[in-house]
Amino acid sequence: MNTIFEDVKALCTAAKSAAPVLALQTVGKRNRALRVMAGRLMAACDDILEANQKDLSNAASNGVPKVMMDRLRLTRERIVDMANAMVELIALDDPLGVTKTFTRPSGITVKETRVPLGVVAIIFEARPNVTADAAAIAIKSGNAMILRGGKEAIESNRAIVAALRRGLEAEGLSPDLIGLVGSTDRESANALMQMRGLVDVLIPRGGKGLIRSCVENAKVPVIETGAGNCHVYVDKEADPDKALRVCVNAKCQRPSVCNAAETLLVHRDMAATFLPAFYAATREWGLELRGDQATCALLPEALPVTEEDYATEYNDYIMTVKIVDGVEEAIDHINRYGTRHSEAILTENSDTAMRFCGMVDAAAVYHNASTRFTDGGEFGLGAEIGISTQKLHARGPMGLSALTTVKYMVSGDGAIRQ
Amino acid sequence: MNTIFEDVKALCTAAKSAAPVLALQTVGKRNRALRVMAGRLMAACDDILEANQKDLSNAASNGVPKVMMDRLRLTRERIVDMANAMVELIALDDPLGVTKTFTRPSGITVKETRVPLGVVAIIFEARPNVTADAAAIAIKSGNAMILRGGKEAIESNRAIVAALRRGLEAEGLSPDLIGLVGSTDRESANALMQMRGLVDVLIPRGGKGLIRSCVENAKVPVIETGAGNCHVYVDKEADPDKALRVCVNAKCQRPSVCNAAETLLVHRDMAATFLPAFYAATREWGLELRGDQATCALLPEALPVTEEDYATEYNDYIMTVKIVDGVEEAIDHINRYGTRHSEAILTENSDTAMRFCGMVDAAAVYHNASTRFTDGGEFGLGAEIGISTQKLHARGPMGLSALTTVKYMVSGDGAIRQ
Repeated sequence: MNTIFEDVKALCTAAKSAAPVLALQTVGKRNRALRVMAGRLMAACDDILEANQKDLSNAASNGVPKVMMDRLRLTRERIVDMANAMVELIALDDPLGVTKTFTRPSGITVKETRVPLGVVAIIFEARPNVTADAAAIAIKSGNAMILRGGKEAIESNRAIVAALRRGLEAEGLSPDLIGLVGSTDRESANALMQMRGLVDVLIPRGGKGLIRSCVENAKVPVIETGAGNCHVYVDKEADPDKALRVCVNAKCQRPSVCNAAETLLVHRDMAATFLPAFYAATREWGLELRGDQATCALLPEALPVTEEDYATEYNDYIMTVKIVDGVEEAIDHINRYGTRHSEAILTENSDTAMRFCGMVDAAAVYHNASTRFTDGGEFGLGAEIGISTQKLHARGPMGLSALTTVKYMVSGDGAIRQ
Repeated sequence: MNTIFEDVKALCTAAKSAAPVLALQTVGKRNRALRVMAGRLMAACDDILEANQKDLSNAASNGVPKVMMDRLRLTRERIVDMANAMVELIALDDPLGVTKTFTRPSGITVKETRVPLGVVAIIFEARPNVTADAAAIAIKSGNAMILRGGKEAIESNRAIVAALRRGLEAEGLSPDLIGLVGSTDRESANALMQMRGLVDVLIPRGGKGLIRSCVENAKVPVIETGAGNCHVYVDKEADPDKALRVCVNAKCQRPSVCNAAETLLVHRDMAATFLPAFYAATREWGLELRGDQATCALLPEALPVTEEDYATEYNDYIMTVKIVDGVEEAIDHINRYGTRHSEAILTENSDTAMRFCGMVDAAAVYHNASTRFTDGGEFGLGAEIGISTQKLHARGPMGLSALTTVKYMVSGDGAIRQ
């Protein structure tokens, strides 16, 4: 464990000393680095596929579930996609630079400037494409990146990071700007959380346990991501067709992700018609419904809901259902059980929609649209490092600007304060 | 202690349920509330002065130092100033509202909107004017505010908060939007730190001990403020007159505040002329210098510096001095010992200045100007709730926008994700 701590510290120290030099580079230079990194990634295609084969056979002998095997598996096409995603970052606006200049009566000129955070660390699970994505977003925004991936993908990650570091070196930049934590033990994640003064922000992307552990134990600043106990509320003035389409999409299109809905709230006046229609429409996925008493009375197929169900993010074909007396009860329920991620109302009454969207406390609120749109790509950010469910610094899908902070550059001609 | 915890929780719960209604008010309504609150503050002038008299006589019998008595003392003029500061907020731009609207190919319209954080809590010391300032900034930005002041000012704070709450009620708003923690025990500060889900951000304004305790123990999000171990670096290409003027100002104009300089770094080539001139110029304040060996050799009056001195924020007429070989050594020293607050370089070489300002990690960097300018008023923010020394969310002087977060308001016509 001490060795792991020292290894992580050495990686972070190297990143910390490499970061200020990257921060001084022009966007042209950072973009050239991205292009060269993408080239080196393509050139290392065979090495990466070979490493990925090792991961896959280790995973197979460890009985890793099929869905995780699919995420882990790389192909030539997937590597091309990874390289293309890096090249696409080149076209995005530079998140760094002067945003405002003002001269004050005291004679000073203040330039409000966006600068990189410094060293960004990310803890993530078994998807090797995140490795390249995260590293590229860091370089574009002038940051060093420490990656701590899951054990299933360690060989693939090593090969990918080696290629990216060669790209940095070829552009005359320090390879230490991208560091991969060699250990995938829990100790290495814990060590990252202690790197105060070396890690400027830690972004956990993974299960609830990981995120809670980071929030509670980290001595470095953390951005919480991903927990999504999302709701759809069907108002008494909802258009039934739109409501059905949106609710089915929010729940069933891809239930494993954080912006999928977990609870359906239905106005009492709509329940008798809407719930049977919703039940029928979700038969092709076999959606399990867990409802309150009124729901179970209307839908004999529904199981009784528990208090704990309301607070659960299933990420599965299970949904809780509650019949409410109006928008106020829906708002109260959401603000009590929601995780401040994405919440939707279905109604043709714009006053009701405004009240809901104003009073519900969440990163994204939807009027007559699916919660599934909370995503950097869908919002047009061009790149996404995660979805923040906290309020400070960044909220919702985080693009390049989430990896920057402000610095005031002040100049004078010997100006002193009176 | 349990009672204190329950009292704080009740106050925060009341604020949390009052906050969403304020968030829906127009800026016109929030401004009217500020005007009425200022009026009620003036109307309560006699009550406040009477309460302040109690605080002053308690403080006198507890042997509170004279400088703190001065901060504590209110006069009719100071109350007028407090009321005027509230009215001045009316003229400031609304920090809330839609900042960007974009329609996406999927058919959704996304409105990026600034919304209040919700419940802001502040822990501060004996200055009663902070009470009115902080409450007014909260109302302008649509937030509820929980105030936990020092024990010396408790009677004054009670009278001030009572007046402000009457103002809110007169405007038909909930008085619970401004809550004063009745206990000034350490337990009440600790209780505030535990209010996860009720307090959206906690801002400690006080000594290092308080800030460290918040950062280490708080379960709620914290913004670190105020620690300022600031440096001035006199380069070999500095203009000696400007350098002398700025260094004296940075150290001696008001040494008790966080943006005052604590360490003077001097280029070896400048030391023999600059240091004696600086010493002579600071005689009127009796500034004590603590220098490295080379400094002590040049200035027999300097005491030997310790490693601990370099890391100390004196807030007093004491300054450490170090002779360095160039800008790189100055940058290394600052990034090692600085608190990321305000750092200055004196030089006529703009390349050196750019290097220093780019590489030094601080909220504000100064070229030929005094560190003393790091201040909401001096930067023209119009209102200041503190000076952040962290990188996430807000950095440097925090104005109204630091008390807001983003909310994505999305609408569609039954839009679903493909």
